[in-house]
Amino acid sequence: MTGAADRAAEARGGPSARRAHILDAAEACFARNGFHRTTMQDLAREAAMSPGNFYRYFESKEALVLGLVERERERGTLLVAEMEGSGDPRGTLLGIIARYFASITREAATLRVEIWSESTRNPDIAAMTARTEAESRDWFVTTLSELATAPDCDPAGLYALLAPLMKGIVVGRAALPDYDVAAAIAQLHALLDAGLDGRLPSSVPPDRPAAR
Amino acid sequence: MTGAADRAAEARGGPSARRAHILDAAEACFARNGFHRTTMQDLAREAAMSPGNFYRYFESKEALVLGLVERERERGTLLVAEMEGSGDPRGTLLGIIARYFASITREAATLRVEIWSESTRNPDIAAMTARTEAESRDWFVTTLSELATAPDCDPAGLYALLAPLMKGIVVGRAALPDYDVAAAIAQLHALLDAGLDGRLPSSVPPDRPAAR
Repeated sequence: MTGAADRAAEARGGPSARRAHILDAAEACFARNGFHRTTMQDLAREAAMSPGNFYRYFESKEALVLGLVERERERGTLLVAEMEGSGDPRGTLLGIIARYFASITREAATLRVEIWSESTRNPDIAAMTARTEAESRDWFVTTLSELATAPDCDPAGLYALLAPLMKGIVVGRAALPDYDVAAAIAQLHALLDAGLDGRLPSSVPPDRPAAR
Repeated sequence: MTGAADRAAEARGGPSARRAHILDAAEACFARNGFHRTTMQDLAREAAMSPGNFYRYFESKEALVLGLVERERERGTLLVAEMEGSGDPRGTLLGIIARYFASITREAATLRVEIWSESTRNPDIAAMTARTEAESRDWFVTTLSELATAPDCDPAGLYALLAPLMKGIVVGRAALPDYDVAAAIAQLHALLDAGLDGRLPSSVPPDRPAAR
């Protein structure tokens, strides 16, 4: 694409639309080819931009991954705001979770799995993964405490189930073409309801007898 | 390593020990550098073998991944045999799951995550992931049916919770250095017990009212 075409496209959408367009292109490209096999040239081509202009927005593949995760965080913040404004927070939480998992594309799920695997090697991505996880835990534990209807509800324990469960649903969506996301969501709902209503026993370490 | 050194090492361990040694080396190398950045030369060097001799055992990176998954399957088969010979199958199942997740190294967990992400691009790895998943589901659903103590237990539904939960524990182990595996295992146990004793409600699709 020529510089003039770049400028014309930018004039139509503005920098923030262009940024969103680049992030969409990067998500598709990383998911298709993997993080390591993707070059900045591939990403510029996918976004239909000149490499020179592309670098003005993102200077490296790592910066793009950080941008994608940041965008996901912002989307999470919007969903939370929606929940806090509703008259039925538990129903809204369940609905948000269902909508998130029912609508996640295979590409987006694959990219998530790539980011987890890249966390083991890239310190910046590892730090961001850890921060996202800590924020998620804090938010869920607080929210689950507020939504609990029984004193037996153990919000931290419930989150120790929900966190890996939600990650595993993303893995299933990415790695298994026939994965039944709807069945997993229905089970997650039942589990959340049972947990909030105190119908899940508190867990105890496997080598110690249960206290109750 | 020289051909003579190769032959001497092989004489000590035999081909099957050598195969196991290569698989250990490949697991470490893939986990450290990722599947794509690892070359056959890297793998031969990690195994301290000449490339020529290395290729006699495995002809490609894909063959090594398939070998690693096959080895994991064989380990699973041994654990199952152990359970079937015990007088307390439920306790043994819980113990096996706890041992598996408590002992999985960060390297092995990372490699698992890599394989899931590679499943989205490599048809041979995708086919193997799908086959492993189908075998796992069949075995778990049958086993959960046998271990259930209440007519309310829904083995297929319980597996729809357990399968992503177990995958997510692997992701946590790989991607989060501070991940509390013990807490996740304890929750998984409590969930399994509740499910087998019929204390988890059957799930219903989120947009329909519960039947009970």
